[in-house]
Amino acid sequence: MTEKMEAVLQYVDGNREAALERLMALLRIPSISTQKSHRDDCRRAAGWLVRELQELGFSAGLREVSWAEPGHPMVVGHDERNVGKVKSGQRHVLFYGHYDVQPTDPDALWKTDPFEPCIREDEAGRKVIVARGASDDKGQVMTFIEACRAWKAVHGDLPVAVSFLLEGEEESGGENLLPFLKANRDEMRADVALICDTAMPDRKTPAITTSLRGTVAEEVELVAASQDLHSGMYGNAAANPAFLLCQLISSLRDEKGRITLPGFYNGVSLPDEQTRQQWRELYPDDSALLGEVGLSRAAGEQGFSAIEQTWCRPSFEVNGFKGGYQDDGFKTVIPSRASAKLSFRLVPGQDPVKIRETFRAHVRRALPEDVDVTFTSHGASAGFSVSRDSECLPAALSALSEEWGRQAVMTGCGGSIPVAEEVREALGMDALMIGFAQADDRIHSPNEQYGLDSFHHGIRSWVRILAALAR
Amino acid sequence: MTEKMEAVLQYVDGNREAALERLMALLRIPSISTQKSHRDDCRRAAGWLVRELQELGFSAGLREVSWAEPGHPMVVGHDERNVGKVKSGQRHVLFYGHYDVQPTDPDALWKTDPFEPCIREDEAGRKVIVARGASDDKGQVMTFIEACRAWKAVHGDLPVAVSFLLEGEEESGGENLLPFLKANRDEMRADVALICDTAMPDRKTPAITTSLRGTVAEEVELVAASQDLHSGMYGNAAANPAFLLCQLISSLRDEKGRITLPGFYNGVSLPDEQTRQQWRELYPDDSALLGEVGLSRAAGEQGFSAIEQTWCRPSFEVNGFKGGYQDDGFKTVIPSRASAKLSFRLVPGQDPVKIRETFRAHVRRALPEDVDVTFTSHGASAGFSVSRDSECLPAALSALSEEWGRQAVMTGCGGSIPVAEEVREALGMDALMIGFAQADDRIHSPNEQYGLDSFHHGIRSWVRILAALAR
Repeated sequence: MTEKMEAVLQYVDGNREAALERLMALLRIPSISTQKSHRDDCRRAAGWLVRELQELGFSAGLREVSWAEPGHPMVVGHDERNVGKVKSGQRHVLFYGHYDVQPTDPDALWKTDPFEPCIREDEAGRKVIVARGASDDKGQVMTFIEACRAWKAVHGDLPVAVSFLLEGEEESGGENLLPFLKANRDEMRADVALICDTAMPDRKTPAITTSLRGTVAEEVELVAASQDLHSGMYGNAAANPAFLLCQLISSLRDEKGRITLPGFYNGVSLPDEQTRQQWRELYPDDSALLGEVGLSRAAGEQGFSAIEQTWCRPSFEVNGFKGGYQDDGFKTVIPSRASAKLSFRLVPGQDPVKIRETFRAHVRRALPEDVDVTFTSHGASAGFSVSRDSECLPAALSALSEEWGRQAVMTGCGGSIPVAEEVREALGMDALMIGFAQADDRIHSPNEQYGLDSFHHGIRSWVRILAALAR
Repeated sequence: MTEKMEAVLQYVDGNREAALERLMALLRIPSISTQKSHRDDCRRAAGWLVRELQELGFSAGLREVSWAEPGHPMVVGHDERNVGKVKSGQRHVLFYGHYDVQPTDPDALWKTDPFEPCIREDEAGRKVIVARGASDDKGQVMTFIEACRAWKAVHGDLPVAVSFLLEGEEESGGENLLPFLKANRDEMRADVALICDTAMPDRKTPAITTSLRGTVAEEVELVAASQDLHSGMYGNAAANPAFLLCQLISSLRDEKGRITLPGFYNGVSLPDEQTRQQWRELYPDDSALLGEVGLSRAAGEQGFSAIEQTWCRPSFEVNGFKGGYQDDGFKTVIPSRASAKLSFRLVPGQDPVKIRETFRAHVRRALPEDVDVTFTSHGASAGFSVSRDSECLPAALSALSEEWGRQAVMTGCGGSIPVAEEVREALGMDALMIGFAQADDRIHSPNEQYGLDSFHHGIRSWVRILAALAR
C-alpha cells in the first residue's frame, strides 16, 4: 500500500496547477446560501460539484430538500463500484463538506472581488488564494475531491469505499441536514464520517477534533412583588428578584471557579497526559487563546489553562440578564421581576437531563417562599467525543503525522459542530473532524483566504488517510 | 393658654360646615401642575389661597419662579404683626404645603367628577370628601389655614408667628423650590418648618415623621473582552462581566442580609426602645407592610422587622441590570459588557461620600485585571432626622397625643421627602412632617379621598400644636 500511495502523492505534486484551477472555478460561483438573489448560484455550484464527481466515476446527483428554508439541494455521490464492495469488508467513509458561503458584506473592505479568486502573498509571506469561501469551505472540500481524483488517476480505484454529502445550507441554518440524514439513513450510513470544515491549531500541527461540548440552556425568571416598588419605601424589606438572581448565579461557582451543583462533575474525565502536554505546547500560555479578544488570563476553573477550560472542562455562563430600570438616568425602583439566560457547557460523560434537573432544584431550594420562578428550556445536548476504540482515529492521526512531519494532535472544541452530532444522532456513526484552515484565514470576514500550503498538504493528507483507512 | 385653646377648639367644632365649603371651593380648581392646559388653573388656585391668607390678615402674594419649568408661582404669606414680634422671643413657624395636584387619568375609573368634590361614605362607613387633591395636598393645607382662622376669629391673634409657603410644582418636579428658598433665605427662615403632606400610620395613631433615608445611587459598567464572544468557544476561559457583576452584587450582603462594605454601619443608631415598641404595635407583623404588594416576610437584614428595615436600617438594592442577549430565544454569547444601577439607602449618621468611595474601592479590588469598570454617580445624600434636642418635637407630639387620645408616634420614612431636606439645606432649620392622610386615600389614583375626620381632627391638631409651640 505504501508504494501505491507514494505514486499518488507524486501525482498530486505534479498536478498542483490544475487542482488550483478547478478550485478557482468553484470559487467564482457566488453561492451565498442566505441571500435569495443567489438561489440560482447555489444550484450552479451544486451542479458543478455533481459534474466533478461524475467525472471521477461517482454516481452523483442533486437531492432536493424542503423540510425548511432555504432548501438548497444536497450533492450526494457514491463510488458505486467501491460502495458495492463494502459487503466484502472494505471500509466505507462518508465525506461531508459544504458548497455554500457567507455573504460578503462589508464589501468595501475587500481588496479584490470576493468571487474573482486571486493568488497573493499574505503578511507572513505565505501564498494564499483570496476569495469568499476559499477556506470555508470550498478549498477544504476540494482537498478531498482532489485526493480522490489522484487515486483514481493513478490506480483507477480508491483504497476505501467513498460517499459524498455536500451541503448547501451550512451558512444559513442547516435545518435540512438532520431530516435528510434521517430520511436517507440506509443510503448515508458508512463506517465513519470525515468532516472537513475545521482549522489546524497552528500552521504546522495537524489535528483531529475529537470532542465537542454539549449544552444545557435555561432561561430563569423570578417574580417577587405584584408590582414594581419604590426602593425608598420598600428597600430592604421587599424581596428584590434582581438581587436574588445575582445571588443564585453567583452561588453556581465556588471561589475556585468550580461549578457547585451536586454531582455536576460526575462522568467528567480528563484527556490523557500526552494530549494535555501537546495542548500545552500549542498554547504555552492563556494569552495565546485570549489575547486577540483583549483578555489575558483564564477566568474560569482554577488549575486549568484557558485551552483546557474550553476544550475539556464544563462551564457555566450568563448569556444575558435583565431586570428593573435600564435606560438613561436612574429610577428608584425595586423590580417585581428579573430574568437571565444561563447555560452550562458539558463535556462528554455528563448527563444534560440530570444537570438541568439539579439546576432547577438548586434554584427552587434557594428562593424564599415569596418568590416565584419560571424556567424555560432552550435545549439540552450531551457532549460529543469520538469513540476511543475507533480504529479509524489512530490510523488517521498517523497519516496526518506523516504528512506534516509532526505528531498530530487530538483537539477539543468548546462549542458544537452540528454535523458531527447529527451524523451521530441520525446514522449512529463516528465523525472525524479534520481540516486544514488557519485561525487567520478570515472566514466570515472580508479577504477570506486559504493557504496554498493548506490546499496542497490537505490533498496529500487525504491521500494518506484514504490509504491508512484501507483494510 | 389651655383655656384660650379650648375656646378655639370649640370654634372649630362649631364651624365645620363653613370650613368644608372653603375646601370644596379650592378643590373645584383643576390645578394640575404638569399639564400645560391647566397653567391658568394653577395660577387661579394660587390666587385663591392668597385671598384666603389676606382675609386672615396675612400680607400674602404670588412669587414668580423661573429657574425651571413649569414655573407656577409660590404663595408666600406672613402674619406681619406676629412676624414682627419674633425679635421679642416669639416662636416663628413656616408652614409648607402644595396647591397643585396630580393628573386625573385614567378618567374612566372616577365614579364622580374629579373636580366636583362630593361627600360619600367609603367602604368602611367613614365619611370622605372625594376629589383630586382632597388628600394630596389641598385638604391637608386647609387644616392649617382653618386652624389659623379659628385662632384669629376667637382671639384676633396667633400664639406663634406664622409664615406660609405653598408650592405649585410638588407634583411636577419641584425644581424651583430649592433655588427659591436659597434666594429668599432671610425672608423664609423661621424656627421650624411644619410640613403637612404625609399620612398617619393608621386611622387612630397620630405621627410625626422624624427621619428619612438618604441615598447613594451608582451605575456600574464592567467591560471585559473587546467584543461579544461565542460562549462555546470561550466559555469558562473568558471573563464574563455579567457573571462578575452578579458576584459583586451578591457579595454586598452577607448571609444575614447585612451589607458587607467595611465601615458601612458606622454612625448608625437605633431608635429608642419605646419608639420601636410603638412601631411593633402599629405593625405587629411583616405582612402589615408587605401584604398589599404580594409579599409576606422581610427580605433584608435579619433581626429587624419589615418596618424597621425600611424606616431605620440602611439598605442595598439592585434597581436595574442588563447585559448580553435579552430578547426572545437564546444566543450563545459571552457579553463583552454588563451594567447595573445600584443604590444604598442611608440612615442619619452615615456618610454618603465615604460610602460611595468604599463601594467603588470594593468593586475595583474584586475585579480581575482584565476587566474595566466605569462608575456613574446618580446622586448621594445623607439621611435626615429631626434634632433630638428640638423643643418643638416633644411639644408637637404631646399636642397630637391629646387631640387623638393616643400616644403620637415618631415614624421614619424609607424614601426621601425633598422639601424637608431642602428646608434643612437652604435655611438650616428643622422640619416636622405632620399629616392626617390615610394609606387608603388613593392619592395619585382615581377617586382620591380625604376623611372628614382627618380634616376636622387635622384642624384641631394644628390648633393644639400652635398653642403648644407658643413660648
